[in-house]
Amino acid sequence: MRNRIIHTISFAVSLCSILLFISCASSHIDPLPSWNEGRAKQAILQFVRDTTDSSSPKFVRPEQRIAAFDQDGTTWVEQPIYTQVVFALDQVKTAAEKDPKLAGAEPFKTVLLGDREAIAKLTLPDLEKILMVTHTGMTVEQFQATAKDWLAAAKHSRFNRPYTELVYQPMLEVMNLLRANGYKTYFVTGGGQDFVRAYSEKVYGIPVNQVVGSAVETKYGYAPDGKGILTKEPKVMLIDDKTGKPEGIHMVIGQRPIVAFGNSDGDQQMLEYTEGGDGPRMMLLVHHDDAVREYAYGPESKIGTFSDALMAEGKQRGWVVVSMKDDWKRIFAFDK
Amino acid sequence: MRNRIIHTISFAVSLCSILLFISCASSHIDPLPSWNEGRAKQAILQFVRDTTDSSSPKFVRPEQRIAAFDQDGTTWVEQPIYTQVVFALDQVKTAAEKDPKLAGAEPFKTVLLGDREAIAKLTLPDLEKILMVTHTGMTVEQFQATAKDWLAAAKHSRFNRPYTELVYQPMLEVMNLLRANGYKTYFVTGGGQDFVRAYSEKVYGIPVNQVVGSAVETKYGYAPDGKGILTKEPKVMLIDDKTGKPEGIHMVIGQRPIVAFGNSDGDQQMLEYTEGGDGPRMMLLVHHDDAVREYAYGPESKIGTFSDALMAEGKQRGWVVVSMKDDWKRIFAFDK
Repeated sequence: MRNRIIHTISFAVSLCSILLFISCASSHIDPLPSWNEGRAKQAILQFVRDTTDSSSPKFVRPEQRIAAFDQDGTTWVEQPIYTQVVFALDQVKTAAEKDPKLAGAEPFKTVLLGDREAIAKLTLPDLEKILMVTHTGMTVEQFQATAKDWLAAAKHSRFNRPYTELVYQPMLEVMNLLRANGYKTYFVTGGGQDFVRAYSEKVYGIPVNQVVGSAVETKYGYAPDGKGILTKEPKVMLIDDKTGKPEGIHMVIGQRPIVAFGNSDGDQQMLEYTEGGDGPRMMLLVHHDDAVREYAYGPESKIGTFSDALMAEGKQRGWVVVSMKDDWKRIFAFDK
Repeated sequence: MRNRIIHTISFAVSLCSILLFISCASSHIDPLPSWNEGRAKQAILQFVRDTTDSSSPKFVRPEQRIAAFDQDGTTWVEQPIYTQVVFALDQVKTAAEKDPKLAGAEPFKTVLLGDREAIAKLTLPDLEKILMVTHTGMTVEQFQATAKDWLAAAKHSRFNRPYTELVYQPMLEVMNLLRANGYKTYFVTGGGQDFVRAYSEKVYGIPVNQVVGSAVETKYGYAPDGKGILTKEPKVMLIDDKTGKPEGIHMVIGQRPIVAFGNSDGDQQMLEYTEGGDGPRMMLLVHHDDAVREYAYGPESKIGTFSDALMAEGKQRGWVVVSMKDDWKRIFAFDK
């Protein structure tokens, strides 16, 4: 009997050794294979190691591990025009079918005529009118169903692929790495909260309750069958951009993130707010400098403006500036 | 060698059997020991079983397992006056020290004089003034620190215990049961979101990012040291009560809960909204009918009004009405 126990223990120890070996070997698999070696990649890996190693002075308790990601331009393509704006322009037709008066009124008339040059010249107030007409007056469920249908069919003008494929593979890897290390990943987007919720789980693994975004008010009421419903109202509740980002973070997350990724002036305050808390922090800016594989733009761009002032602030504060050209081995999952 | 392997396997199988036995035995431990046997307890246990058993037609995928809890009167004592209002009244003194003009102005003068009868007669607009003065003009962190300090010292007038001990033990058990079964538990409270966040994790195991509540706007700015801060502004963003509850749910959670617990007319729309989705749903109302151990109140109460209309709606729709007197074996953790 004693022998048997010894044998059993020895067998168990061997088994444990094998498992330990597999576990160690697997930890040598690069969690960021689409990143080139360099300062940005090292900064991310080091930060995750430091904040999750309980013997490190930089250890952060799991409930504080909150990472905030901007969406447009940080985790997917935002050029030459925000995806959601393309969606809104496409939805004008549907809106005009419901309300024929729209067809004769500007800016809807211009959109319906399909004159690209005239559409490109639409002003911000024009755009707001279009967003209100196409994003309100339906239940939240109806809106999301419409967004899902559109995303399943629409394709990007340059890449000729669904928008949901124009996702930055290196950023998906960062999200997965963070989640595997006990981080909660949130979107904090200037885009519409309900629009992003239509695909955030499927495309990024971010559940609907971890999406902070621009939002209109909703109104509670009853469907004809008596069921409680929420209708999207043409009244802005939150513009989740610039100073609105920390405000949205407080409303939905209720604590400062310790990691924040952005790519434009709209993310400045979110990064500052993230930096302003105690303990270890990591702030990163994605810089679009790869016209060949994606786009190159900066201070001059109306979409995703990355001003010289933001670049200077980032450098002065020690934020990580990610060069898409130099730091990313591949940009999309479909890149070779 | 062959024998040794057989011995090892047989030993391993025995070990597994023992572990399995322990596991099965532990599943016979009552997860709701503070509940008396009855319809309410059975309804909760049955619902959790049905929605988590993958072979049940009522199975619900984990990402849909969202449970919403009202706070005041549903998970802790709300009589004879909301805890947060007691806090606000106590904070008037601090506010008057900062701004001495307040001491001479109503309704602050009445509060500072401490005349209970006069305080009880304060109107809703008076109360709003008091809430604004005591809940805004500081950073979100300063406010939470103040709330935590107050909660650590303040005691309930009848029970002479900290408010954070006046928590309903049966509800803690339900929250734990749900979480152990893959549910995310949220507060959806008419109380202040930032106030409840000050203790939700410690007292209920609900993290700050799972608290929906009434909220004022916040304003982004900079502390003297240049750090980004958010200041609470005297402008209401959301009154998370009645129709505001589904609206707050949509803003923060982004999906319909499938379980909702309330105790008053303020929860009606939240329960209806929860009921309005597809698939299995469970709606419950806590009825305060135990004047001996807690309080008995209903349609006549200004705090936690439970109208006859709500009772009729609940019965007609098959909502579970929990009698504190009959369904709860004990109310507080300190009850014998």
